[in-house]
Amino acid sequence: MDLPRSLKKLIDSFERLPGIGPKTAQRLTFYLLHVPQSHLDEFAENLEKLKEKTVLCSICFNVAESDPCTVCADRNREKSLVCVVEQPLDVLAIEKTGKYRGVYHVLHGAISPLNNIGPDELYIKDLLKRLNNRTVPIKEIILATNPNMEGEATAMYLVKQIKKKNKKIKITRLGQGLPTGADLEYADEITLSRALEGRKEY
Amino acid sequence: MDLPRSLKKLIDSFERLPGIGPKTAQRLTFYLLHVPQSHLDEFAENLEKLKEKTVLCSICFNVAESDPCTVCADRNREKSLVCVVEQPLDVLAIEKTGKYRGVYHVLHGAISPLNNIGPDELYIKDLLKRLNNRTVPIKEIILATNPNMEGEATAMYLVKQIKKKNKKIKITRLGQGLPTGADLEYADEITLSRALEGRKEY
Repeated sequence: MDLPRSLKKLIDSFERLPGIGPKTAQRLTFYLLHVPQSHLDEFAENLEKLKEKTVLCSICFNVAESDPCTVCADRNREKSLVCVVEQPLDVLAIEKTGKYRGVYHVLHGAISPLNNIGPDELYIKDLLKRLNNRTVPIKEIILATNPNMEGEATAMYLVKQIKKKNKKIKITRLGQGLPTGADLEYADEITLSRALEGRKEY
Repeated sequence: MDLPRSLKKLIDSFERLPGIGPKTAQRLTFYLLHVPQSHLDEFAENLEKLKEKTVLCSICFNVAESDPCTVCADRNREKSLVCVVEQPLDVLAIEKTGKYRGVYHVLHGAISPLNNIGPDELYIKDLLKRLNNRTVPIKEIILATNPNMEGEATAMYLVKQIKKKNKKIKITRLGQGLPTGADLEYADEITLSRALEGRKEY
């Protein structure tokens, strides 16, 4: 027995998504068979129009509906404080804390020689250009790339490049240590040594 | 910062799928932002046309492109042997073994009072109707519902109903025991007792 072609095609489409294997793709497709046609049409429309209505902000390169994005256009945001992140989702995560009042710069990735991603594939040049803006001088850059190999390498590279351009800018990195709710017993050595280094006095 | 509306909508669509939570929905949506528009259009088309080109086979109620389906229409299949399964995916799993030459009957679910699914919500009446077919009398019915609470209850109910209609039909249930590659040490008690009951002589 062969699966009907329309099912096979949709299974293929789902399988192309990251983290979705053949079994999950089958399960999702068969689930959608029981869903009203209007739901399918809506889903399809949302897919087609995904990119039509989004642009990259020409200042921070975040995904947005308008250019500049709502954050860059917001007068109450501190333009002298720039937080550099790898992905738009990272911006979302930081915004959810409600503790950050500066602006962002989205690199759209991290330096990863194994995956053929060098500095030129990221929006690094555009970040360095922002340093030249004399009307709103940048005082501090927070490097909020991921605390893994690629993210650390990217941060190191950025520190070098930023210092070449402008030695007065304060460059910081997000604090590292134990995540809230964690168990000391199960923490890995690197996290624990970073937590010791970064200990705070009462 | 708010996400662009087109992204939010697609995230919503993904979140409605079973087993996909808000984080996965976000990840998939942002992944699709980097995909060529032609891929998105193809995905959308596959969704829209999913149900247009599929029908339920009027004999076995499997999802198919034609009625009757390729299995029911195949002259080489033994029509006197019927395997009863819960879902179309179960048919696929059995077909992959290459060991089954009979036909199927898809119930589209299992009896589950907690979810308000009684015998009338399933294609059980249609199975009982097939027993009356005098031109191709059924000799054996294999109950291949899932070996869990709902599947077992459905099998029990089917045995009763089939025996009421026709006492001559042989009714069997798929063998239960240890799955290949399993570890005796980690097998649960029920599986292990079923394996003992179903032991085979050399």
